[in-house]
Amino acid sequence: MSRYVYVNGRHVPYADAAVHAEDRGNQFGDAIYEVCEVRDGRLIDETRHLDRLDRSLRELAMPAAMSRASWNRVLREVIRRNRILDGSLYIQVSRGPRPRDFLFAPEGTVAPTVIVIARGADRAEAEARAEQGIAVISMPDNRWDRCDIKTVMLLPASLAKEKAKAAGAKEAWFVDGNGLVTEGASSNAWIITADGRLVTRPASHEILRGVTRMTLIDLLRREGLTLEERAFTIEEAKAAREAFVTSASSIVMPVVRIDGQAIGNGVPGMLSMRLRAAFHEVAERAPA
Amino acid sequence: MSRYVYVNGRHVPYADAAVHAEDRGNQFGDAIYEVCEVRDGRLIDETRHLDRLDRSLRELAMPAAMSRASWNRVLREVIRRNRILDGSLYIQVSRGPRPRDFLFAPEGTVAPTVIVIARGADRAEAEARAEQGIAVISMPDNRWDRCDIKTVMLLPASLAKEKAKAAGAKEAWFVDGNGLVTEGASSNAWIITADGRLVTRPASHEILRGVTRMTLIDLLRREGLTLEERAFTIEEAKAAREAFVTSASSIVMPVVRIDGQAIGNGVPGMLSMRLRAAFHEVAERAPA
Repeated sequence: MSRYVYVNGRHVPYADAAVHAEDRGNQFGDAIYEVCEVRDGRLIDETRHLDRLDRSLRELAMPAAMSRASWNRVLREVIRRNRILDGSLYIQVSRGPRPRDFLFAPEGTVAPTVIVIARGADRAEAEARAEQGIAVISMPDNRWDRCDIKTVMLLPASLAKEKAKAAGAKEAWFVDGNGLVTEGASSNAWIITADGRLVTRPASHEILRGVTRMTLIDLLRREGLTLEERAFTIEEAKAAREAFVTSASSIVMPVVRIDGQAIGNGVPGMLSMRLRAAFHEVAERAPA
Repeated sequence: MSRYVYVNGRHVPYADAAVHAEDRGNQFGDAIYEVCEVRDGRLIDETRHLDRLDRSLRELAMPAAMSRASWNRVLREVIRRNRILDGSLYIQVSRGPRPRDFLFAPEGTVAPTVIVIARGADRAEAEARAEQGIAVISMPDNRWDRCDIKTVMLLPASLAKEKAKAAGAKEAWFVDGNGLVTEGASSNAWIITADGRLVTRPASHEILRGVTRMTLIDLLRREGLTLEERAFTIEEAKAAREAFVTSASSIVMPVVRIDGQAIGNGVPGMLSMRLRAAFHEVAERAPA
């Protein structure tokens, strides 16, 4: 699947894709990432992903790793070399290697580490999963306070996913100190009210500014649907007509159970599935 | 300084010390670490460091990387190959490489990644720094809720140290939502009250169970000093007779300013310096 990995200007065989043991990503969680969907060989929402990558770098005072034109070229080359038709690109940029020190290296002395990994995915399998919908569990949000920066500090998310798996679920929704859902471990959380309004938490430091979330908002506008950007409780979610999550790898994925309780009839919601089907009509399809 | 790095059973030249791009440490912050002092070629508090490493692994459901006897042997070999007299060992254990997935690999299918890096340090320079003492700034604790597990999720600590540096300080003390100091970005926080009691926050999920902290508690008992394990406010710290931090790399380091305000006379406290001088009389000095 992943035949060649882009590492700092070179396309190397997967087995040789390495970073130094003292890379900041490996020792300090000092790296940011993006996951972009590839569909029919084209990158989906490339502009928004690269815009968000730039924002993450700025928020952490990391220099730009390369020009936008270079990103465009490198990403296409990784897709081509790995012959990916449907799947995803994983992009990671760290502050680079440095003899271990909490402080950053002096400006301009260390080049960032850039990694791009392509991976194929089975579209039919993803559709089959959506037809079933997924179960979600809720748990207290125990992460740091800058989840809007897409960093590799993902251990709490990983532990949450493991906990979900142990409970027969696919995703965990984090709940803040006020009982309000922040987001999923690797997705944004949405509900649809009895009267058809779509509700999702506003972008803040507590949640990721999901690219799929943004593109879905475009779709809602086009469809004339009502968006309510506000936080909701887990109880409201359990009583909602429909619920779903958004992410670049799952697009719009219906949620059919929360903490064991069925949402609606316990099957994927009609509107959720309609939005899933229509999503790529509004998403940017970058030229191959 | 670091000539050879131990990576998964091999001692490789520093430049070749690498982990796979998809190592869990690099992509998920899913790795734990230890930093041990080396003094006169001997490991300080080796037992406590390896005990804590075992605890971190257990808390994250990671398998033991190797036997205690193997650790003892490997650590000595790294010191020997790097000819370290005074300095430190950095030990990192991750959940190993795996095609990116929030979930852990099935049990027993992936070996952990073990790295040990030795680095020399200038003892005279460290003593000179202690004679000066360090300045500290305070800031809200914005980390996740399991800081008792010594993971590589250190980006908030790194950002805090950068902020301290920008303010002319060497360390940042995190303050919780109740105005109470949790700990330093890479150290435990201590104060000495007007009547000579030593105060430090009790071990909980909010702070690291510092090895140097534990060994210092042994020293306090030996010296007949009074320990109060309780949280303190940043205001109490600013008004304290003395303040200091403990860590394996700084031992007992006097704090002479907090948020620009002088502690005591603004010079290292007598008791702090006495404890620093006596520390290695109680610390375990593992045979070389």
